[in-house]
Order: sequence, then C-alpha cells, then structure tokens
Amino acid sequence: MSERFAEIASRLALTAADLHVRGWLLGTSGNLSAVVGREPLHLAITPSGVDKGELQADQMILIDDRGCVLGDGGAKPSDECPLHIRVVKERGAGAVIHTHSVWSTMLSDLYFEDGGLAIQGYEMLKGLHGVKTHEHREWLPILENSQDMLALADRVADNLRQYPGTHGFLLRRHGLYTWGDELRQAKRHVEILEFLLETLGRTRLISMNSSA
Amino acid sequence: MSERFAEIASRLALTAADLHVRGWLLGTSGNLSAVVGREPLHLAITPSGVDKGELQADQMILIDDRGCVLGDGGAKPSDECPLHIRVVKERGAGAVIHTHSVWSTMLSDLYFEDGGLAIQGYEMLKGLHGVKTHEHREWLPILENSQDMLALADRVADNLRQYPGTHGFLLRRHGLYTWGDELRQAKRHVEILEFLLETLGRTRLISMNSSA
Amino acid sequence: MSERFAEIASRLALTAADLHVRGWLLGTSGNLSAVVGREPLHLAITPSGVDKGELQADQMILIDDRGCVLGDGGAKPSDECPLHIRVVKERGAGAVIHTHSVWSTMLSDLYFEDGGLAIQGYEMLKGLHGVKTHEHREWLPILENSQDMLALADRVADNLRQYPGTHGFLLRRHGLYTWGDELRQAKRHVEILEFLLETLGRTRLISMNSSA
Amino acid sequence: MSERFAEIASRLALTAADLHVRGWLLGTSGNLSAVVGREPLHLAITPSGVDKGELQADQMILIDDRGCVLGDGGAKPSDECPLHIRVVKERGAGAVIHTHSVWSTMLSDLYFEDGGLAIQGYEMLKGLHGVKTHEHREWLPILENSQDMLALADRVADNLRQYPGTHGFLLRRHGLYTWGDELRQAKRHVEILEFLLETLGRTRLISMNSSA
Repeated sequence: MSERFAEIASRLALTAADLHVRGWLLGTSGNLSAVVGREPLHLAITPSGVDKGELQADQMILIDDRGCVLGDGGAKPSDECPLHIRVVKERGAGAVIHTHSVWSTMLSDLYFEDGGLAIQGYEMLKGLHGVKTHEHREWLPILENSQDMLALADRVADNLRQYPGTHGFLLRRHGLYTWGDELRQAKRHVEILEFLLETLGRTRLISMNSSA
Repeated sequence: MSERFAEIASRLALTAADLHVRGWLLGTSGNLSAVVGREPLHLAITPSGVDKGELQADQMILIDDRGCVLGDGGAKPSDECPLHIRVVKERGAGAVIHTHSVWSTMLSDLYFEDGGLAIQGYEMLKGLHGVKTHEHREWLPILENSQDMLALADRVADNLRQYPGTHGFLLRRHGLYTWGDELRQAKRHVEILEFLLETLGRTRLISMNSSA
Repeated sequence: MSERFAEIASRLALTAADLHVRGWLLGTSGNLSAVVGREPLHLAITPSGVDKGELQADQMILIDDRGCVLGDGGAKPSDECPLHIRVVKERGAGAVIHTHSVWSTMLSDLYFEDGGLAIQGYEMLKGLHGVKTHEHREWLPILENSQDMLALADRVADNLRQYPGTHGFLLRRHGLYTWGDELRQAKRHVEILEFLLETLGRTRLISMNSSA
Repeated sequence: MSERFAEIASRLALTAADLHVRGWLLGTSGNLSAVVGREPLHLAITPSGVDKGELQADQMILIDDRGCVLGDGGAKPSDECPLHIRVVKERGAGAVIHTHSVWSTMLSDLYFEDGGLAIQGYEMLKGLHGVKTHEHREWLPILENSQDMLALADRVADNLRQYPGTHGFLLRRHGLYTWGDELRQAKRHVEILEFLLETLGRTRLISMNSSA
C-alpha cells in the first residue's frame, strides 16, 4: 500500500501543477484526491492551504472514509474532504478533482436559478466517460455554496443520486467538481468541462452580437 | 522506414504537447498524423483517448490507407483516421492536424448556416502555403458533425474537391482540420488558422461596440 | 542576516518569474519586497527597470525604512519603495507584491468614481488571510495614481488606516498592491485578487447579455 | 564582431521563443533584428518562414543596410528587413521587434480611419523609453498594409519623421513594430504596447456595459 500511496501522491502533485498553470487552482484553491484502497476506503488528498504550483508528493495526506488523517504528520487535509469521500462512495470514483476557474465561477452564478446547465451538441462531450456521441445532453447541476461541509456533502450525495448520469457539478460562485475511474480520467473530465464552460460562456457573450 | 517512423513519431509527440499547452487539444481531444510512406500509403497517427500533454513517441500507431493497424501493439488509432486518410489522398498532404479550440468550436456554429466563413485582408494569411498577399480570400468550409466517420470522410472528400484551394475546414461544434506538405507546415497552419479564428471571433464581439 | 537575505532574494526571484509568466509583471512593471529584519526595518526589494522574467536573486536590493540602499552595488530599488515601506509599517506585513494586470488596470478605472469595489459571495475570498466564509465582503479601495511617491505613500497609509480590514488596494489605471505575513501569503493574495478582478470584469461584460 | 554576432543571435532566439509562447509570433509570423555594427550598418535578423518557438541562434542572418545577406548560408532573411533597416536608421534603434498579436491586429483595423490611436493616462506607459509620467500621451500611428516592402518602408520612414516621439506603429490588420536602444528595451516595449492594446481593446468592449 505504501508504494501505491507514493505513486498516487506523485501523480496528484503533477496533475495539480498542470492545472495550476492553466489558472484553475489559483491562490491555493481547489483540491484533488485519489483512492488508495477500497476496503477500508483510503484516500490520498491534497493538503489544505498549499500553493498547487509548488505542491510536492510527500505533502499528500492519507485519510479514511470519515476524513480522519492516517499516520503521523501535522498537515491538515482539504476542508472539502467530505465532498470527495461522498463522490467516491456515490459514484465509485477512483479520483476526484475540484477546480476554481473564472468561467466555472461565472456560469455557476449565471445559471444558478435554473438549477444547472445543459451542455449538448459538442464533440468535446465524447471525452466524458461513457458518452458516445456529440448529441449527448450533459446536465451539470449547480448547488448553493456553503461553509457547512457535512451538510453540503449530504446535498451533493442527494444530487448525485437524483442525477445518476452526471460527470460533475458546480458549486455556486465556487467551482467545479468532477471525477473519474482513476486520476487520468478525472483530469480529462476537468479539461473537457472547463473547455465546455468557457465555450458556453463566450457563446452567450457573442450571441447578442450575432446580427453584426 | 522504421527509423523514419521513429523520427516522425517523435515530432508528432512534440507537436501534440505544444498544441496541448495552448489549450487546443484538451481532454484527449484532437489528433495528428504524418505520412511515413506513399506507396503503399502508411501513416503515423496519434492513439485514441490519450492525454496530448503526456503522449510519447512510442505510442504512435502505424496504419495503412484503410486505417488498419500495422504491426503489433494493442493500441487503437484515432477514430477519425478515415478523415486523415482522405485529406492525405485528396490534397497530397504529408501531415494532418485536427484541433479543438474554444474559438473554432464557437465559430463553426455561428457561421454554420453560411456553409463556411471567409477570411480576407489579414497579413497572417500569408503564412498559409502558397498565399502571397494579405488580400487573399480564404474560404474555410464548415461541415455538419457526425459519428459516422466513413460517411463524414466522404463528405470531407467531396468538400475538398469542391473547394480545391482551401487550407482547412471546420466540423460544426467540433473543431478544425488543417494539413501541410509536412508536419511543420501543418502546425504552422494550425497556429495561423486558430489565430485568425480568434481574431474574427473577437472582432465580431467588439464590432457592436464600435461607436463607443 | 546575510543568509536570510539570500534565501528571501531567491524566493523573490522565483515569485517574480512566476507572476511574469501570467502576464502580471510585463514590461519591467510591478515590484516585490519582503522583510529581512524588523528592528531596524530592512527590506529586500526588486530593482527598478528589470525584466521580471529574467530577474536573478543577486539583483535584489536591501533597503532601510527610509528607502536608502544598504551595502554597495549601483542598482536602484523600485521607485515605489515608499509604498512598500508604508504597507509593511501599517499592516505589519512581511511581504508586499505590486502587479500590473489588464483586468486590475481596467477595473481600477471603471470603479474609480465609487472609491473602490466590493467583492462578496465568492468562495475564492476564503483564500484571503483571516477570511472564513464566502459571505465575506472585501472592499478593495482605488486611489488616484501619482508620480509623487511620497505623497502617494501618505495617501496609501491614510487609506490603510481608514479601512483596517483590507487585503489590497488598486492604483487607478496602474495596478494592484497586496501583501501577506510572508511572501507565500502575499503571492496567494495576488492570485486570489487577480482571479476575482477578472471574474468581476467578465461578469460585468456578460451581465448585459443575460437575457440571451 | 563574430563573437558579438553570436551573442546577439543567441539573445534574438531566446526573445523570439519567449514572445512565441505568448502567442505574439504564431505561424512563423513576426521578425526580430538587432544591430551588430554601425559603420557599416550590420544587422542580425531572424530568417523568413521559421517557427519562432524552434528558432536557434545559428539560424540568424547577418545583413547590410541594403538587406543583402553577408556571408554564406542559403537562408533568406525576413521579407520585412527593409522596414527594420529604416527603423534603425530613422530612430538610431539598436533592435527592432515586429509581433502579430490578436489585439494589435484588431485595433489596427478598428482605429485605422483615425490614422492611429492615442494611449494616455496609464502607468504602464512609463516603461516606454524616456516617458516619465502616466499622463504621457503616446500616439501609435496605423499605416495601411502592403506587400511592396520598399514602398512601405518609405511610408514608415515618412511616418517616423512626422511623429518623432513615437515608440512604435501598427500596420493595418498586420501587427506591431517597436524598437529600443538594444534588444532588452525593444522586448520591454513589445510587452508594454501589447499590454496596453489589450487593455484598450477590452475597455472598449466593456465600456458599452458600464451602466450594468
């Protein structure tokens, strides 16, 4: 297990650095996790309050399914670890990534009253696990933000059950959660959803000018 | 030939990484190919479903002119290889690159009803092979997207014959195809067409505000 | 102290390069400083007129609390060192960063008549030191720009006393100042405030189109 | 002189790569030059049609004041070398950089009827050589584009004499020319003018929405 944790921790650090460069994890925001073992459930997760551009593998934290830190070391896991744990349990995910981009922040507010936003007709959707055609309609739910992480985790779990086919969700004025069977797939989903959110946002902006 | 394949595979990987950094191949989208031999036609092509920021030369796949994989190795070539093969045959191209950018995705939808978009009067056009003046008018056709790659490849071939002077085309809400005598020229065409699409998109946006 | 200066100088150079890549310190603009000692107050500060993408640790300058250069070496500290010194004194900051981004430049002008701009309801705010909830309202004051650095420093000091809870301020059509207990925190504040300014700017742009 | 050429060539390559990353020299567009000797005038200049992200020092070309290539080697200097030579002669510049950015391309068209655009009131202007205050008014002339480089060079020379205080000019739907005493200053001017053009372009876009 220790070797597996080391390998996962190393990939978490590389993925975090990559997403930080794109401006999706600025200011120590966002967090990443990956499953190290299923029974009992053990997760490697990024620590709280660390610059994702500087994060090293040996800073990753091992937690159990209640979010308790396993092993020594004084570092604190991300405050949002209850959300990661619920996503892993509800979806059987092997990795969860939470990013803060400008476009996800904006659209999570603009479409909040609708309860989410629908993305349909884009080839890029095919990069989402299990999607076979651009005609797929992806529903991206938007949940109100909260500082009560346990209550928020319950709402997230309810939402995941209500929409069993979703690949991610937005927290209002906060950011994007997505996941995958393993870290590589979760990163792919981040890139796809962030791309589509930027595309939707810019399209909304340009559509008023379409008669020009 | 094996040495030539290795060299081409290495350049494909470097080019893919470069275009991934710019956000034009996110989420394992897009694909690149280059001709390894003409008679019989052999192409090196990127594998399906791989992160273009991590792609290594030894992952490239050698295919024939029917898209069949040559040699061993279980990897699957890009689903879109029929389109690459048709572009190579119709244009005598030595390399083909297909990117997914936010701007090409948007403009392929905004101008779909017109059947394409005309780009004229920009110095940047001179970077397209054979273009000698900014007064050149480049017609960039837009084709409806499809998951039937063979049917789509036929429509692409028809379009290439209908417009023999084009340097690329768009698939609706999908992305850009362009090509060149060799990979370096194809990459140059990607940069030029993506630049011009962004310029056209932003100009459309700002033109409404021109009285300000 | 000399070893401490060397370590701080090295971190200043790395931070400057990182922010330059993001386009927030273009054209030799902006400056960074960090406290080397408190009694007497000694600051390491970036030199005037140097490309932040090329800046080396051994180019950093040690100044006292009047902005006088300590030690030999002919280089000139940033013209804006009086502002850095006042921020350090008024806030007890350990590091100060001043960036020039497109969005901070624009918003510092658009909201100038209001005396500042309020940022509220974003999760990203929690990355500002001491902020515990997205419901926090951050007031970012905007001061008129000036070339009289001593007079400007006095106005800055007055403003810092008038708004004791602020984490930064804007100079009109000039850029952002922020700070932290140490350099890492100051850099975190730069990323957060620049992210939020871009978000506010783009939201303002898109809000007119919200009926589309 | 040979050693000086080598040093300058090396710096030209590094500067080109840096500006290519920012998207200001895409598709082999743009060109850079620096003075190697004054009497007789010898310039090191980037070759025609080369990817600026891959350009190596040993690809730089030495030309005289008529644009003739000195020494052997079959490479062709940039077609725009007459413009570089005229800027060097009229301004006594030590280096000239010509970039193609999206914003300079757009604004060179939007403001063409006005003969140029005025930039005033931005702190960033102080990075232009000799400018001491943000109150400075920089006039950036816009000239109609042409493929007749000698005629265009004459018009450029006339314009430089008509506006002796300018730090750059735009060619319509083409790009930016700027220069400096040496390459570092010219690069600084690129960053400053590109920053200001983006700021002006985005401000124009947002100003319509200022009542929101």
